Amino acid sequence: MINTDGRKRVVIEGITPIIDNGAFPIKRVVGEEVTVAADVFADGHDELQAALMYKPVSERTWSETLMRKKENDRWMASFSIEEMVTYSFMVCGWIDAFSTWRKALLIKKEAGQDVDIELKAGGSMMRKTASRADSGCRKRLLYLAEIVENDHDPENAVAVATGDELVNLMGMFPDRTFESRSAVYRVDVERVRALYSSWYELFPRSCTNDPARHGTFKECAKRLGDIANMGFHIVYLPPIHPIGRQNRKGKNNTVIAQPGDPGSPWAIGSAEGGHKSVNSELGTMEDFTSLVEKAAELGIEIALDIAFQCAPDHPYIAEHPEWFRKRHDGSIQYAENPPKKYEDIVPFDFECDNWKTLWNELKSIIDFWIDKGIRIFRVDNPHTKAFLFWEWLIKEVKESHSDVLFLAEAFTRPRLMQRLAKTGFSQSYTYFTWRNTRWELSHYLGELTETGLRDYFRPNFWPNTPDILPEFIQYGGRPAFVLRLLLAGTLCSNYGIYGPAYELCVKEALPDKEEYADSEKYEIKNWNWNSADSLRKLITRLNRIREENPALQTMWNIRFFETDNEFLMYYAKTTSDLSNVVFVIANLDPFHKQSGWVQVPFEEFEIPENQSYLVHDLISNNKYVWYGSRNYVELDPKILPVHIFKVNRKLKRENDFDYYF
Amino acid sequence: MINTDGRKRVVIEGITPIIDNGAFPIKRVVGEEVTVAADVFADGHDELQAALMYKPVSERTWSETLMRKKENDRWMASFSIEEMVTYSFMVCGWIDAFSTWRKALLIKKEAGQDVDIELKAGGSMMRKTASRADSGCRKRLLYLAEIVENDHDPENAVAVATGDELVNLMGMFPDRTFESRSAVYRVDVERVRALYSSWYELFPRSCTNDPARHGTFKECAKRLGDIANMGFHIVYLPPIHPIGRQNRKGKNNTVIAQPGDPGSPWAIGSAEGGHKSVNSELGTMEDFTSLVEKAAELGIEIALDIAFQCAPDHPYIAEHPEWFRKRHDGSIQYAENPPKKYEDIVPFDFECDNWKTLWNELKSIIDFWIDKGIRIFRVDNPHTKAFLFWEWLIKEVKESHSDVLFLAEAFTRPRLMQRLAKTGFSQSYTYFTWRNTRWELSHYLGELTETGLRDYFRPNFWPNTPDILPEFIQYGGRPAFVLRLLLAGTLCSNYGIYGPAYELCVKEALPDKEEYADSEKYEIKNWNWNSADSLRKLITRLNRIREENPALQTMWNIRFFETDNEFLMYYAKTTSDLSNVVFVIANLDPFHKQSGWVQVPFEEFEIPENQSYLVHDLISNNKYVWYGSRNYVELDPKILPVHIFKVNRKLKRENDFDYYF
Repeated sequence: MINTDGRKRVVIEGITPIIDNGAFPIKRVVGEEVTVAADVFADGHDELQAALMYKPVSERTWSETLMRKKENDRWMASFSIEEMVTYSFMVCGWIDAFSTWRKALLIKKEAGQDVDIELKAGGSMMRKTASRADSGCRKRLLYLAEIVENDHDPENAVAVATGDELVNLMGMFPDRTFESRSAVYRVDVERVRALYSSWYELFPRSCTNDPARHGTFKECAKRLGDIANMGFHIVYLPPIHPIGRQNRKGKNNTVIAQPGDPGSPWAIGSAEGGHKSVNSELGTMEDFTSLVEKAAELGIEIALDIAFQCAPDHPYIAEHPEWFRKRHDGSIQYAENPPKKYEDIVPFDFECDNWKTLWNELKSIIDFWIDKGIRIFRVDNPHTKAFLFWEWLIKEVKESHSDVLFLAEAFTRPRLMQRLAKTGFSQSYTYFTWRNTRWELSHYLGELTETGLRDYFRPNFWPNTPDILPEFIQYGGRPAFVLRLLLAGTLCSNYGIYGPAYELCVKEALPDKEEYADSEKYEIKNWNWNSADSLRKLITRLNRIREENPALQTMWNIRFFETDNEFLMYYAKTTSDLSNVVFVIANLDPFHKQSGWVQVPFEEFEIPENQSYLVHDLISNNKYVWYGSRNYVELDPKILPVHIFKVNRKLKRENDFDYYF
Repeated sequence: MINTDGRKRVVIEGITPIIDNGAFPIKRVVGEEVTVAADVFADGHDELQAALMYKPVSERTWSETLMRKKENDRWMASFSIEEMVTYSFMVCGWIDAFSTWRKALLIKKEAGQDVDIELKAGGSMMRKTASRADSGCRKRLLYLAEIVENDHDPENAVAVATGDELVNLMGMFPDRTFESRSAVYRVDVERVRALYSSWYELFPRSCTNDPARHGTFKECAKRLGDIANMGFHIVYLPPIHPIGRQNRKGKNNTVIAQPGDPGSPWAIGSAEGGHKSVNSELGTMEDFTSLVEKAAELGIEIALDIAFQCAPDHPYIAEHPEWFRKRHDGSIQYAENPPKKYEDIVPFDFECDNWKTLWNELKSIIDFWIDKGIRIFRVDNPHTKAFLFWEWLIKEVKESHSDVLFLAEAFTRPRLMQRLAKTGFSQSYTYFTWRNTRWELSHYLGELTETGLRDYFRPNFWPNTPDILPEFIQYGGRPAFVLRLLLAGTLCSNYGIYGPAYELCVKEALPDKEEYADSEKYEIKNWNWNSADSLRKLITRLNRIREENPALQTMWNIRFFETDNEFLMYYAKTTSDLSNVVFVIANLDPFHKQSGWVQVPFEEFEIPENQSYLVHDLISNNKYVWYGSRNYVELDPKILPVHIFKVNRKLKRENDFDYYF
């Protein structure tokens, strides 16, 4: 009946950050901290200690840091992630008999009570502790015990008994016989790029100067220099595989392709090959690996699109008909979302009897491209494949290649997006694409950064994608493009654009839809890189600002502050040591100039009171001298809708003399 | 590597109500409902079903109720607790292939697409379902399948395929092969008295008309009639055991007792006996069992105080010295909370090597009194004994006597009080005793009834105890006594008073303390039951109102509403069918008359618009006709500080004629 040691009196509850009681690991990148909090308490009035224990999973010994007691029996401590390996942590608590005794001694002394017996008890506790100590400390403890027990001056005995030296010595060798331990929780650790990244999406087939011809990997390689110069980290390519010929879609998603129509790259597979082949119009596998190498030389990475689906003529369909659902007439069931039909795409049946061979084959696709040098995968529609599959796949892949990153392209319901992140996706597309007002943006950022989501859901903000041309930029014109770009890149440490169309401010949409007219998904585009509309310079500047300001390289430090104009949104990001302080003030109205007063919580930023400070707009390079907590801002969207201020907090001067010279 | 069936596509998350991920059971009383919610979703766009499964733990088969889908992939269902046994529940979810198919069929039909293949597929699904069905349904399903597949009129086939009959038939025999199941969670069920109770605390030794003499069980038995007539359910007696003679405390907690001082009943044990004996000055064990029987005849219950601690001359100390901590001089360590000393009390050492024999002995004390007919224990200072001990003890006791209730007398930090409730205490003392303002009370009630606490922490509101004479009633006089009584009894379905002192409005305190002067804890009192200050009539009325208004017999239905005067607090309790609607409006200022307007959300209470309704003050018996959403209230604390309105919601009349007659 009594199975556990009933003398474990310390209770440990309410540990954060954990996900679904530890069913999933929390996520961090190398260099981030894990701040653990827990309710730790015991019956009665004894003093406690609590420790945070942590280690890379594979190590045998725990590192340990004492937790600090906060309000309401909550204890806290942090540790830093130093290696790109999975970490474990747990919380321990024990009764601190020495502190309990010391506290009682002080109170009794203060109350003028006799403490002779207490001193004897303390000495005995010190002698016991000495038996656990190393020889140096043991000697010292025994020496101090002698004083505490027998000093002819009781004042001196109490002074020694309650002095710092003894507190430190006793704290080094606590009696943890009846210590309580929480369960062990995991931290999945990824490289920094999981948290800080700039993505540029590019269809290699449009990398051509000849509109009549299909672009190639070789031509694509030539574009990489420009993209690297703009400061992007990742060039993401839509699927590069052979495109199905059966049921191929024509321009603007028409059901019948015309001769020469290239089809949608997401309709993967033909007689030419499937997910492990490259479309021969793009070049050879060697051309592709050269492209990957060229990127590496430029310090950027190629990300591939993983779309686990097939064209009707994908070789899998003949080789593994059991992986697909059949219609009642025996034909293969194409993808549908009634009444919409995707006749050029066949989904896998994750409920098929042969699901294990299917899972293994799909994993082999990832392994294949890892072998070709790819470490970043943007996964198409992961929410239409089984969650258990992703959990398994990502875990398996990361076991051999912990540097692989997965971006979940799931624009769907919150619970599904969150679950995908829990199952292991490194980054996730978000609703940013449709959040435009101050209320929408600040609440959404609050949800992403101030709730449990922050421990597993890393957002990636995209102002556009080949699938989505939001109304805001369709109708807001160039100022809207500028605004949404700067918001994406400063609100979120991960952002990306469907590159050419954004760079060139393409805003022609299908009537009453948020879809591109003449979408690149169904045709080869010939981009005019020298268009007057090009945002290239601005993009370059944004990416450089992100690179030079570490405050912008994380997500979790964002704070919103008040302005007196609903169109003016004001947020700050800072490094924890305040060595880098960035204020962003955005005019969310792309049509009109807006002005107003912003509230600077200068105490929080340790800006000295009664002294001016410089805010330096890193976009326009203008500098303004601000003073106190209320400052005026005016933003004309036609000139520049956003200030990105680097705040130069002047140090307090020794004397006024310095001020005048 | 792939250990689970990967075809289980449904995810079940975020189940409520559960405590610490199921580490502790939730609590209910017989007749209450358990409303379970969970996030249930799958990949893709398939339709789902979710079911709440529940049963008494000991039964083999689950009962089942389909859950209803709410916003954001949240599903809900409820079940009723019908027996006083532990229940289990879990959530299941599965892909509903038929509904998915039916929805697609309707959309395709609407879009004018050909549905012939779909109808064939549906028929085949119906035939498969028929094979799982009983013979009547099987025949019907096959008959309908024939129509769906082959009816010459496709309109008719679609009508049958999407008709209610088929929905119902297919819903009866779902294919749950790949169903997902949550973990199984427990519900601890107690009798109604755990949720609805009125307590009267009484020192039997003061049940005497002769101030020079110690009262007895026999005299106490004579008081029971009055207490039963006042409408209390439970008479709670402080410890009735022999009181230690060694270090016995004198009047007003003086360190040296004078001859004739009876000592504190909480200093348990002497040569006469310990926790299984009765103080011979009170009478014999037979007198005690007669008292218990007398109570039962009157329809009330005796609750005993369980104080697991000893006087220095308790027999345990000689018999089991190993259960106690020794001071350095070899003497037994008395209780301390430095600088306070409780020389008349010795605590058990829950860290002693012999903790198992200690636990078993303490349990045998409970068993002993259960054997004497006691089913309710008020546990003294449970927060100074190990939590694991309580968890074990309560579980063990309830396994043989599920009708036993434990009230935790823990006035301590929130986390400790909450943990005691999790470990199994049926009811808990609360901070009500010191919550006086509208903000304090409404927020505290919010915490108790609108957070996870409601599933395990049953509050019991005490306006006073022998240990606590709050300043509010010390200085607020009789109006404060009336106010706090009526608040306790209407805010909380469990309430109690330290009877004689409250009934007679005793307010003499030690200087600058919230403690009674000449406390009954250290002396025998001679109460003047006929005092003009007696609240007996009011108490009787309050208890009758509670008995006649089921809305007041639960805790979880309380809602606070607006008034325009900070001193006027207004709350409502209703039965879920609105057959009983009670409004309470209290003037929290015991010194001055307060008036103001209260906001009645009449739509919520289904009070017909544009029609007057009657509010009947059950305390004063006054009736008021109210109209609309804003009504005026004036409360003079010297007359009556609280309205307890029963709201008579008039039914809508058929015609105006009725109105005039």
